[in-house]
Amino acid sequence: MTAAAARPEDTRPTPPARRRPGGRTARIRAQVHDAVLAELGEHGYDGLTMDAVAIRAGVHRATVYRRWGDVGGLLADVLDAASDDGWQPPDTASLKGDLAALNHEIQEALTAQPPIVAALIAASFRSEKADQAQQRLWEDRYARCEVIVSRAIERGELPPHTDARRLLIAATAPVYHQLVLLRTAPDPRLPDHAAGTAALAAFAGAFAGAPPDDDT
Amino acid sequence: MTAAAARPEDTRPTPPARRRPGGRTARIRAQVHDAVLAELGEHGYDGLTMDAVAIRAGVHRATVYRRWGDVGGLLADVLDAASDDGWQPPDTASLKGDLAALNHEIQEALTAQPPIVAALIAASFRSEKADQAQQRLWEDRYARCEVIVSRAIERGELPPHTDARRLLIAATAPVYHQLVLLRTAPDPRLPDHAAGTAALAAFAGAFAGAPPDDDT
Repeated sequence: MTAAAARPEDTRPTPPARRRPGGRTARIRAQVHDAVLAELGEHGYDGLTMDAVAIRAGVHRATVYRRWGDVGGLLADVLDAASDDGWQPPDTASLKGDLAALNHEIQEALTAQPPIVAALIAASFRSEKADQAQQRLWEDRYARCEVIVSRAIERGELPPHTDARRLLIAATAPVYHQLVLLRTAPDPRLPDHAAGTAALAAFAGAFAGAPPDDDT
Repeated sequence: MTAAAARPEDTRPTPPARRRPGGRTARIRAQVHDAVLAELGEHGYDGLTMDAVAIRAGVHRATVYRRWGDVGGLLADVLDAASDDGWQPPDTASLKGDLAALNHEIQEALTAQPPIVAALIAASFRSEKADQAQQRLWEDRYARCEVIVSRAIERGELPPHTDARRLLIAATAPVYHQLVLLRTAPDPRLPDHAAGTAALAAFAGAFAGAPPDDDT
């Protein structure tokens, strides 16, 4: 889920020749989003200002204030826009492979330079609006990832009533914990290890539960 | 590990009749620490000021500035002091029980009111000094918890060369991930579930590895 935040292709500052669907409003929004991500990557939350975003985006200061209100509004809109993509979790034809590929995406996003995804997560500790948007984005990403578990059930790898969310959290949490909270140096083996551990536990029935109430 | 931050008994603001070992310097330090934690729990990082801490602690403003320098210095000293305790991980005579008891301690600390441990973790995103101290504290707590794994090896529950740190991260990461990053409502079943999952994976050999180089 690419760190459950913006996709890398959405977070690169000002990609060349990027097509902007929609009219002038959509174009301005995209320019402002690119500017927010670039400023955030360079200066972090403390250096992110409405004025710097307006200048970098080449958009009138008044427009930025009117439309986004404050820095929290900018961050929330960037995070909400990250859900408007076609992102789907990796499909490698095995549970362990899917979880490992997902974890590699997360680790790459969390260790990318400039550290945009890490800065967005840090910003969620500062701004209530960014916090709520980050939570919505995480919910969206984990919901999309549930197909990894349903595919594994279809393949007969997992029992029918496996708790998809709990399995996905178990598989991905160690990567976030190490990089975002413990802030240890990235361990290149961790994405595979954490995926393998969760898959092993899943095969042993750790996430099997009663069928959900609405499944009858 | 009590959220791998301060112990609850260290984090209660101004406990009654608490004994202060050491002389005047130690007493002032303890008063200041209590004041930092109380201010942090009430106002969060943004409301934490040197002056408010000095007033609350009943200590001269100049003393606080001279000894701790700034808010980051105060937080770092509070976090470093949290390691000076006799904390040991729970001993329940089984791997699963030890991990579950540890996770319950973490969940309680992360959901306690006032939210001191959560505020300390949030502060580590703001202050470089607090960040480094929080990392030292986490390292200390995880190192102490390794005895959980060595006891399980002695009992024959786990193979001799089990990677203790990786097992402990797998067991505890889901609790931190849910409460600190995803910020979902606390799930009372999560501490047991996450512990049970890690134990199941461990019994299945997920953390078994080659003996470490320095083990020969």
